[in-house]
Order: sequence, then C-alpha cells, then structure tokens
Amino acid sequence: MLENSSDSQIKKGLLDLFVLLALYENKKYSSEIIEILKKSQIQISEGTLYPLLNRLKNDQSLTYHWEESNSGPPRKYFKITDSGKNLVQEKLNTVQELFESVKQMCKLNSIKF
Amino acid sequence: MLENSSDSQIKKGLLDLFVLLALYENKKYSSEIIEILKKSQIQISEGTLYPLLNRLKNDQSLTYHWEESNSGPPRKYFKITDSGKNLVQEKLNTVQELFESVKQMCKLNSIKF
Repeated sequence: MLENSSDSQIKKGLLDLFVLLALYENKKYSSEIIEILKKSQIQISEGTLYPLLNRLKNDQSLTYHWEESNSGPPRKYFKITDSGKNLVQEKLNTVQELFESVKQMCKLNSIKF
Repeated sequence: MLENSSDSQIKKGLLDLFVLLALYENKKYSSEIIEILKKSQIQISEGTLYPLLNRLKNDQSLTYHWEESNSGPPRKYFKITDSGKNLVQEKLNTVQELFESVKQMCKLNSIKF
C-alpha cells in the first residue's frame, strides 16, 4: 500500500470507520481492536489508536469501562453506542458514494477498475 | 454527502485522483476539470483546484501550456504525463484495497454494504 500524503489522508479519514466497525458487534480492548484491523490489512499503532478512541468517546460514539483480567492488570473495554452505529452507516454511505464516483470516472476513461 | 472532519479527509485525499482522472484522456483547462468532476458528484472550488494542479505539476504528474481562445483570453491547458498515469493506477489500487477492507469488515459484522 502506498504511503504518499494523499493516500495517508484517505486512510486516516477511514480509521474512525474501521475502529467503529471493529467494535460493531462486541466490546473490545485496544489490543483486540489492533488485531482485528490487522486481519483486514489495516495497520494502526497504539499511538494513533488511543487518541482516536478518546475522540470517539468524546463524540459519544463509544463508551468504555474497566474489567478485571485473569491474566494481568484490568482491561479498558470499549463499546459502540447507538449514535456510533448511526455514524458507521453514514460513513459507509460516504465511502460508497466516493467509490461510485471513482468507478464512474474510470468508466468514462475506459480504465479497468 | 457528509461534511465531518474524517469524511472531508477522505475526500481531500481522493481529489488528486479525481483531477488526474479528469485529465486522463485529454488536455483540459481548469473550468472543464471542475465541470467534469461535478458530473461525478465531486465538488471542487477554484481555490482548491489551483494549488492542487500546481502541486501535481511540481510532482511531474502533469504539464501545462497556454492556448489562444476564440472567446476571451488565452487558456491554460493541463495534460497528464506518463508518470501521472502511473500515479492514477497506484491510487486506484489503494482505493480498491481500502474498499475491500471496508467490505470485509462489514461482512464480519453482517452489515449490508
């Protein structure tokens, strides 16, 4: 995957969506989120994830609570809210629209996409 | 289309691609580029387009020349270079990969996408 500035802008803009999708069905702690994203070919570091989770919590797109762990210190679990699920749907619509625009412009230029 | 910060980040990251796609087949002047993007549901102002064209020219993704016009002052025509065409292909690969990641994560959560 490319790493020039406009590509990293696209990816950065999608990270909120990826994190919310990772939490869509079940609460998770941060290492689990990183693992899930990795399986979908999305690399995210803890240094990027933590402020992003904090921002999504301030936006009321997710909540968190602490849970005891059998192995080690207590874990901070994140859970998506109803408002977060609505945000996912809105973001998916945006992605779909943009993808359609790319597809349409490729078609106009006979570019395979 | 949404206008929160992460959505506008995604769109901003795609603008280079849209502009290069608008120039893919034929040279065009700036108003023509804006018109073509509008037809694909992409709004771009002159204030955003001009520095973007300048940056793409500095990256050697496009060139320009002046042409006399039958109606009014000379026009600055932009033309994509071979290196610009390669960039289009790389960007399309990135978009495709990201779209696949979104699709995969939606599937894992049984979200229609």
